Amino acid sequence: MPSSKVIRNVRPLGAAAVDVLVSDGKIAALLPAGSADPGLPTLVDGQGQLLLPAFVESHTHFDKSLWNTPWRPNSAGPTRNHRISNEHTVLKDFKVPMAERAGPLIEHCITRGSLYFRSHLDTQTIWGIQHVEAMLALREKYQHLIDLQLVAFPQGGMLIAPGTVELMQQALDLGVDVVGGIDPAGIDRDPIRHLTTIFELATRYQRGIDIHLHDLGELGRWEIERICDMTEEMGLQGQVLISHGYSLGAFPPVELFALADRLAELNISVMTCAPPAVTVPPVAMLRSRGVNVCSGSDGIRDAWSPMGNGDMLERAMLIALRFGWSKDEDLAMAFDVVTQGGARALNIADYGLEVGNAANLLLLPAENLAEAVVNRPLQRTVISRGQVVARDGVFCGPLIGR
Amino acid sequence: MPSSKVIRNVRPLGAAAVDVLVSDGKIAALLPAGSADPGLPTLVDGQGQLLLPAFVESHTHFDKSLWNTPWRPNSAGPTRNHRISNEHTVLKDFKVPMAERAGPLIEHCITRGSLYFRSHLDTQTIWGIQHVEAMLALREKYQHLIDLQLVAFPQGGMLIAPGTVELMQQALDLGVDVVGGIDPAGIDRDPIRHLTTIFELATRYQRGIDIHLHDLGELGRWEIERICDMTEEMGLQGQVLISHGYSLGAFPPVELFALADRLAELNISVMTCAPPAVTVPPVAMLRSRGVNVCSGSDGIRDAWSPMGNGDMLERAMLIALRFGWSKDEDLAMAFDVVTQGGARALNIADYGLEVGNAANLLLLPAENLAEAVVNRPLQRTVISRGQVVARDGVFCGPLIGR
Repeated sequence: MPSSKVIRNVRPLGAAAVDVLVSDGKIAALLPAGSADPGLPTLVDGQGQLLLPAFVESHTHFDKSLWNTPWRPNSAGPTRNHRISNEHTVLKDFKVPMAERAGPLIEHCITRGSLYFRSHLDTQTIWGIQHVEAMLALREKYQHLIDLQLVAFPQGGMLIAPGTVELMQQALDLGVDVVGGIDPAGIDRDPIRHLTTIFELATRYQRGIDIHLHDLGELGRWEIERICDMTEEMGLQGQVLISHGYSLGAFPPVELFALADRLAELNISVMTCAPPAVTVPPVAMLRSRGVNVCSGSDGIRDAWSPMGNGDMLERAMLIALRFGWSKDEDLAMAFDVVTQGGARALNIADYGLEVGNAANLLLLPAENLAEAVVNRPLQRTVISRGQVVARDGVFCGPLIGR
Repeated sequence: MPSSKVIRNVRPLGAAAVDVLVSDGKIAALLPAGSADPGLPTLVDGQGQLLLPAFVESHTHFDKSLWNTPWRPNSAGPTRNHRISNEHTVLKDFKVPMAERAGPLIEHCITRGSLYFRSHLDTQTIWGIQHVEAMLALREKYQHLIDLQLVAFPQGGMLIAPGTVELMQQALDLGVDVVGGIDPAGIDRDPIRHLTTIFELATRYQRGIDIHLHDLGELGRWEIERICDMTEEMGLQGQVLISHGYSLGAFPPVELFALADRLAELNISVMTCAPPAVTVPPVAMLRSRGVNVCSGSDGIRDAWSPMGNGDMLERAMLIALRFGWSKDEDLAMAFDVVTQGGARALNIADYGLEVGNAANLLLLPAENLAEAVVNRPLQRTVISRGQVVARDGVFCGPLIGR
């Protein structure tokens, strides 16, 4: 293997130390530490650090972030509809173009160890096609470093905003990957027609669905049941992700076993950021019934809230804190949610530390996964496709055409 | 002022830049930036950073931390009583003495910007007086750097563990500051006798009370009412702090207005760490009715949970997240809880950025309080009594007798 490099002396997920041979951007071999050919070039001397797969940021909104701009006090009113209209006001005449906000944010997320992303992309008539085009251009700029899935997301409603469906089709035609949706009842006020529309779009374009579902309590649960019905009817098993799904936290977990089993059977994933101020899906119960759970940062420093920093290791800590977890196996479960859970939800084929997978890796100093989640060290070495792209919080990935 | 030094060009709480004259460990003057005598020695060139009062860590358990020792998987069972007995098992034969765990933890907390602390101190017959003596020795070691209040805390119950009251008296005789208590109903199973005992101790020793109250729902609320009764009867207004008070989060805030008004009238403070997995006191409502609220880290890397890092700026973020706050004024409220709220609860006289107060200060790069809470930068310069004791996470305070 003439083009191989070696990551020396790292502990995969906390196991015994190995040397990792990396070739053509992939993991070529895992050898006992110290046994790799000393003549091969060293990619990183790991010094016994943890070796982890790069994080999967399964839910964010790069297009609306105010990252890399001066602090802006939040000006939104109290309801979801206030926040939507406030966002229009804030972004309409915003001086800094999206690329200068989202680009640095992507680089920041890379420094924290994320290399796989799903970003919702506001597909609203108020923006026309410009937001979509700007985000597609940004994806092209970073495509040699990250995997970025985009969702045509009708943030302002779909049926209530005529022209939105056509714009979503245009976005899908241009290369946006996933069909989005939002609160078929709470925002769009016609749940069956909303769901029928997005499922038909997904079928026609052969794409997945990622639906924002904030609707609470019985209403949200009823909508999840309808999403199950349509997933089954349309044969979209394994292609549907429910984002937020707050209603799943509104009932004693035992009352949700049947619904969880149905989600598992249809391979519908659930994304939760585990926010503490609202009911959230019971992650451990869902996983115990076979439902795949992933996580994301949601908004990062945007007009909805200034919170968020794109650190999926901090997100794992927040998930653990949300459920009062303190055991090593539970902290490792939180870690799994932000890694393998994301890879399963986003259908990433070559993910993980096995030979043959993409060498999208993260090294950090910790004894094991539990300590990594608790300590969240910022000394992180990030490797994308076999190349070091960030060290200790500093982005050093090569940029093409800059 | 021959012994004066200057902190140049800092913005108090985000206001216009000033130079701060520090003399004899106190804030001697605040002058417009650039106007302090250039001949005076510079303590720190602030370069426009925020100037903040040092944090008040109002609730932690230094004595039980496993800080500075190798990772230890949590071995506790599911209930509070399991955790108490598990802690005995873990600490009984622990190889590293308390001073080598709590000492480095105190130094770590200083690097994060805390200089005022209230630490509960397990006062249990299983430990005899050794834990008390070890913690008092540690306080002496750091007394030139920090203000540390200690609470005689009957972690394992008081009435149910004969000999505990006598041990608490012994601790108070030796210089422990505050009378502790714990779940008069849930743990000690005789609420009135428990409360009577600790209120009598407080009266006899002329000390304050700090009671752990995890009891939930109606039970906890009823106990808070009894604490109000006794505070009034014994004339201990301004001397009582209720820690956790989870039950205050079990009711719609409007149902608690009368109780909140009573807490305010009796000047009883409430401490919350704002954990997401349990109901918590409604901070904004309590403050709006005049109740003082403070916060703390609770356990830091101990046998109860490996979570916690003693960072009160992160705690402010977690408080904001707990309640879904995103407005600048709400983020500033979270900041106030971990600073002025603590100073009021702990009756710290010379606290804050006004002239004449102790020069216990923190500098960090942020535009304003809101951004500080969201970003939690680790570049922090910590000044204790006019002396730099930590920079960028590295403790550099002088240690006496080391």
